[in-house]
Amino acid sequence: MIKLVFLGTSSGVPTRDRNLPSIFLMYNKERLLFDCGEGTQRQLMNFRLKFMKIDRIFISHWHADHFAGLLGLIQTMCLEGRKDPLYVYGPEQSKKFVEQLLTVGYYFRAFEVITKELKEGDKIDCGEYDIIPFRVEHNIPALGYVFREKDKETANMKKAAKYGLSTGPLIGKLKQGLPVNYRGKTIRPQDIIEKKTGRKIVYTGDTRYTENIIKFSKSADVLIIDSTFSGDFVEKAGSFMHSTSTQAAQIAKKSSVKKLFLTHISRRYQESGMSAKKLEDEARKIFKNATLASDFLEYDVK
Amino acid sequence: MIKLVFLGTSSGVPTRDRNLPSIFLMYNKERLLFDCGEGTQRQLMNFRLKFMKIDRIFISHWHADHFAGLLGLIQTMCLEGRKDPLYVYGPEQSKKFVEQLLTVGYYFRAFEVITKELKEGDKIDCGEYDIIPFRVEHNIPALGYVFREKDKETANMKKAAKYGLSTGPLIGKLKQGLPVNYRGKTIRPQDIIEKKTGRKIVYTGDTRYTENIIKFSKSADVLIIDSTFSGDFVEKAGSFMHSTSTQAAQIAKKSSVKKLFLTHISRRYQESGMSAKKLEDEARKIFKNATLASDFLEYDVK
Repeated sequence: MIKLVFLGTSSGVPTRDRNLPSIFLMYNKERLLFDCGEGTQRQLMNFRLKFMKIDRIFISHWHADHFAGLLGLIQTMCLEGRKDPLYVYGPEQSKKFVEQLLTVGYYFRAFEVITKELKEGDKIDCGEYDIIPFRVEHNIPALGYVFREKDKETANMKKAAKYGLSTGPLIGKLKQGLPVNYRGKTIRPQDIIEKKTGRKIVYTGDTRYTENIIKFSKSADVLIIDSTFSGDFVEKAGSFMHSTSTQAAQIAKKSSVKKLFLTHISRRYQESGMSAKKLEDEARKIFKNATLASDFLEYDVK
Repeated sequence: MIKLVFLGTSSGVPTRDRNLPSIFLMYNKERLLFDCGEGTQRQLMNFRLKFMKIDRIFISHWHADHFAGLLGLIQTMCLEGRKDPLYVYGPEQSKKFVEQLLTVGYYFRAFEVITKELKEGDKIDCGEYDIIPFRVEHNIPALGYVFREKDKETANMKKAAKYGLSTGPLIGKLKQGLPVNYRGKTIRPQDIIEKKTGRKIVYTGDTRYTENIIKFSKSADVLIIDSTFSGDFVEKAGSFMHSTSTQAAQIAKKSSVKKLFLTHISRRYQESGMSAKKLEDEARKIFKNATLASDFLEYDVK
């Protein structure tokens, strides 16, 4: 199972309805965070998510709205007795910034925080999945992240039954790509074994429209994208190095993704009388399966 | 008017009900914060307090639960166009820590943040009130703060009427300590002018029991005190350099304060089945006018 929970969906300034950016991803026993805005630890508590088991945090870029919750989350993990190391990933300068953040004040550090600086071209092999960072276009160094479940070899048990095979060591051999002899017949891997394509989730962080997102989002199951402004503000979005709802939808369409989430919503859509729903409506005209993210929205990636 | 609003009343780890420590104080047009735990900016928004007008922030000590909200609050003030300088006060090392915090990541600083390091014996003259820091006993350098409204000379208008005086320049002269002649009589200041004692509010931050709190809290209108543990855990509280509800009440009694608030409540009183109400009950046995603080509790100091 892959579960996504939106913990914070505001842009730079929080609102009464939207906390600062953070997305929780649970894959089997693994728990990941993408960005960690101020208040993330309490959002995790409020949703009753087991934050002590988060092992990897991916920071898209070093603007405070995307990282200021790291300090408190890590301090709480320390106070609660965590011993396992925690991995923090981000673009260039991340090591310096993490060290700087975690040495403000009198800091009790109970476990190792290991920071890795990433760039496009890298790949983090996490066993059953890979994380692939890619370059986006913001006014400071910034990364998007692809969560890519690895493809799996699975036995088509209906086909196996035709050969009289059920689960067992012979199926295992076939999965390894080796032919087997059974009841006097040679069974080749391609007779039974099928490739199951891994699921793919893409998170852009803050970025203006760039073709590079399309390149990395091809056929993704889920694309989560900066949609700070409505389509009325294309120029403003560009000058602030953010995207609009319509640009988000165009990217989703060109990438042939299955599902689009709009996030990083400007507070103007709460407080000026303009509804944030407008962003969703605009996006759906271009890409039907678009949803405006909201805090505590949960989504299971089938 | 002096208004207090408790923005966060947890101890080191927040809970679903309690955010991390922060207290808002409004005095006429002045807005102050005592401590600024993670999430303080959103607590301010949720209570619809005008956080842009906060001009002074007093940090009791440099543990993350008391300062991690500074980063986001100041960043939001920048994004919202603040131009006025902001004063941050705290114990030794505060300058270094504020500078370190505000240079993590790519930080847009739109106004000046002026940090002042304080110690017992200092006094900050803020016009109509003083702030007096005092030494408390925690495992790192830590201060409590006295908010002390200045005494005022006021005319007793009933007494003035006896002399045929109403408001005017003669009253002004009397307030300056000068006698006046009116209708052939000499009126002395002490005939009409009375001293109105300023109100006093004391916040301890984190501390174990110490007589120094009593010394600085004498006859305070309000005492807000660390009450991390119940009276059952006196030894534990001492070893962790915190206070219990019963110690808090003893201090309130010995100081002859008018009102006591218990805060910095351990999360054990939410999650272990023990009610935090127990702390209030214990305190009231010793000092009747004790109240367990809760998030968004508002109190007007008459």
